[in-house]
Amino acid sequence: MSSLPPIADIDLRRATLCQILHWLAAGRTQPGKLAEVYLGAIDRINPQINAYVDVSPVLFTEQARMAELRRRDGVIGRLDGVPIAIKDNFDIAGWPTRSGMPSSEQPAEQDAHVVARLRASGAVLAGKTNMDEGALGAVTNNPHTGPTHNPFRNGYTAGGSSGGAAAAVASGLAVAAIGSDSLGSIRIPASYCGVFALKPTQGEISARGMAPAARRLDAVGLIARGVDDLTVLLQVLAGYDAEDARSRRRRVALSLPDWEPGKLRCGVLPNLAALGVQQDVIDVFEAALQKLDRELGECRTVDFDDWHFARARRAGLLLMESEMLGTFSAQLANTQHPVSSSFRRMLDYAARKTAADYAEADRVLDAATLKMRRLFAQIDVLVMPTTPQGAFPLDGPVPDTQADLTSFANLAGCPAVSIPMGTLPNGLPIGMQLVGARGSDLRLLELAAVWSATLDVTPDYPIIP
Amino acid sequence: MSSLPPIADIDLRRATLCQILHWLAAGRTQPGKLAEVYLGAIDRINPQINAYVDVSPVLFTEQARMAELRRRDGVIGRLDGVPIAIKDNFDIAGWPTRSGMPSSEQPAEQDAHVVARLRASGAVLAGKTNMDEGALGAVTNNPHTGPTHNPFRNGYTAGGSSGGAAAAVASGLAVAAIGSDSLGSIRIPASYCGVFALKPTQGEISARGMAPAARRLDAVGLIARGVDDLTVLLQVLAGYDAEDARSRRRRVALSLPDWEPGKLRCGVLPNLAALGVQQDVIDVFEAALQKLDRELGECRTVDFDDWHFARARRAGLLLMESEMLGTFSAQLANTQHPVSSSFRRMLDYAARKTAADYAEADRVLDAATLKMRRLFAQIDVLVMPTTPQGAFPLDGPVPDTQADLTSFANLAGCPAVSIPMGTLPNGLPIGMQLVGARGSDLRLLELAAVWSATLDVTPDYPIIP
Repeated sequence: MSSLPPIADIDLRRATLCQILHWLAAGRTQPGKLAEVYLGAIDRINPQINAYVDVSPVLFTEQARMAELRRRDGVIGRLDGVPIAIKDNFDIAGWPTRSGMPSSEQPAEQDAHVVARLRASGAVLAGKTNMDEGALGAVTNNPHTGPTHNPFRNGYTAGGSSGGAAAAVASGLAVAAIGSDSLGSIRIPASYCGVFALKPTQGEISARGMAPAARRLDAVGLIARGVDDLTVLLQVLAGYDAEDARSRRRRVALSLPDWEPGKLRCGVLPNLAALGVQQDVIDVFEAALQKLDRELGECRTVDFDDWHFARARRAGLLLMESEMLGTFSAQLANTQHPVSSSFRRMLDYAARKTAADYAEADRVLDAATLKMRRLFAQIDVLVMPTTPQGAFPLDGPVPDTQADLTSFANLAGCPAVSIPMGTLPNGLPIGMQLVGARGSDLRLLELAAVWSATLDVTPDYPIIP
Repeated sequence: MSSLPPIADIDLRRATLCQILHWLAAGRTQPGKLAEVYLGAIDRINPQINAYVDVSPVLFTEQARMAELRRRDGVIGRLDGVPIAIKDNFDIAGWPTRSGMPSSEQPAEQDAHVVARLRASGAVLAGKTNMDEGALGAVTNNPHTGPTHNPFRNGYTAGGSSGGAAAAVASGLAVAAIGSDSLGSIRIPASYCGVFALKPTQGEISARGMAPAARRLDAVGLIARGVDDLTVLLQVLAGYDAEDARSRRRRVALSLPDWEPGKLRCGVLPNLAALGVQQDVIDVFEAALQKLDRELGECRTVDFDDWHFARARRAGLLLMESEMLGTFSAQLANTQHPVSSSFRRMLDYAARKTAADYAEADRVLDAATLKMRRLFAQIDVLVMPTTPQGAFPLDGPVPDTQADLTSFANLAGCPAVSIPMGTLPNGLPIGMQLVGARGSDLRLLELAAVWSATLDVTPDYPIIP
């Protein structure tokens, strides 16, 4: 036992994953204590925030007890005893996978690949988090499970579709969370909730056992309160999965971090306002770039053809909605628990599209892939705000530009990291996005760590005691 | 100059690519001589066979003259001076790319990737070969350009859709040929015409500049009179192409040939007759297996679920026909030079399919990919006849089973080699197919070479003087 004092409950809920791993290793906290603190917080605070839709205190406690035993025996995994939240479109054996849909499915028979990897690393599965209906949206104002509130301001959106995951991490109801990101679903809520997020290279983490939105675009995403936490999670979860047809066989291991700030070739977009980015976001972004002046290396404006960009996004959305007609065919046919009319409307649009339209859209994505490949032959990283605006009121209009800056990373299969970059005039956080070439995930995270340290704006998370 | 006698014209047209390269190196023949012999043969014999649809004697001769100059200067490429035929769905700068369609397109502005590679290796582009209309078929009885005749028997099909390519090689009108293979289009005519063919691993040879049939299935295929010729061609043509979104980035170089006959795990199908393979083909195949007894290693029957197989083939065809609606949209709209009614009918079928059908078909192919991945964890090579029957009369009924044994290699992205395995009772050749795991192209070719030597059935090509 350590002679240093134990860690206060509130600090256990505010700390990064890496910090908590240190405290566990030093004996300053225990898996049982973490379970008690996090479960207690979920019990008290989740009713206000609605980050979780499904928590089993019995299973939570039992997992922590097993972690205590492993720790006593000295045989522990990389994440042993750490509570991690799972978005409700991933299978956990024995739990229904609802994907934000109205009808309750049969319990899943098998863990999703990432869930199995988390279990094998000793992580404690904290529960399943709220999301947009069918993951088709970026607000997490779910007609069946209710809205998730932004931890920084009640009544405001947490973003989506992984809104519950981001809110759980930002409010200290989970140490980290696993979500999905097909057009920005992990980065948009990360931007609004002031947390760190990684959408890895397409296929880098197996998506087996995740309800498919659009296989070509789907990525398993990571959310945490520290940038280094994302690296630890990626190392636990990444790798080839022979049972996932889209799993990526690496030619070499992920590129090692090898940034030389002076030699960095950094790309920025020519006219953010023309892309629909709000002026207050541009102001925060430009202030951040100024702070980062020395770390940006050679910064150049990239030619980012707007028309192709919008066209590729529409193409991606068509793939997604078409596939969802299959993924959610049972729910769409269920008259007893009907899907919302807005969800049905979006999929009705795809139902009118032909197979030739799909093939054409898929070709547009091939072109987008080539475009990004050419871009990343000239620059190392593309930097921009993660979202064109911050969180907005849940009862107000929903901007249609939310995924405008995130989607192209999915369309081209590139990794993207979102880090907090500052605070908007209304006091809410806003994220900065770093996008790199396929396979550059670790380099991107290293750069994000350097930049985060310089920016020094990690939010003061609103941890309600 | 060599003191050995020059090679007879007929032998220049019957020899393998490797043999011709030896003769060129030894000075026993020259690029100019090859051009004269092959051009003369095309002039005399192509009217009977209709293997080529487009030959330019002026350009043919000029390319050979340049090859002579290079050889005089001692700076030559891997295929320098060797006449190679190109299927008419590949771009050659300055030539129209007709793809077997009725309307003549504008001349291509750029060479297809493989054509550029051939030029860079010093190969002489002999001309463009006949094919099924839009590559959608396996007979090469083209309503606009006429039928290609099987060199072994006039009035019989050469197979398709690369029928012209296979017939050109088998009749000594080209040393080798480049074709395309989306469901079997290179292997089917190879089987009927007694030549050797390789459909490489998906993405191993860039398909840029080839009219897309179904990008997920499309492969550039190789045809030659010797199995080692395929290895030489593969080495010239394979490799990553940053400008092709589907180009394969190898994790390692292609697996090296490392077969140990005693350790080979060879898979065979349980019931060929039930798969529609004709009895005379089964007889030739079984006789071949008996001859190969010692080289087959541990031979096991693989569980090849018939129902999924047919389902995957239908899925692949839907992808193909849907994409062709885009690829050939101009030709389909052209009333002055209308496409055939049968071609239009096939694409009309796809035109009634929805985007959700396409997405579902694409998922079926993901499942097929996993199925084959699991299979090739258990065996090294799958062996079967290339086609359920041999060549049939051009004026008779067309069997609908032609691609039944070839298509699954495309559906799963695996390499496949076809080698002659014997002669049917009617005197026509028939091929044996070897299929391996993705990336095992060179091992497959090595095995095909060993087996070909044992079988010793290289056809006596019907080279009309």
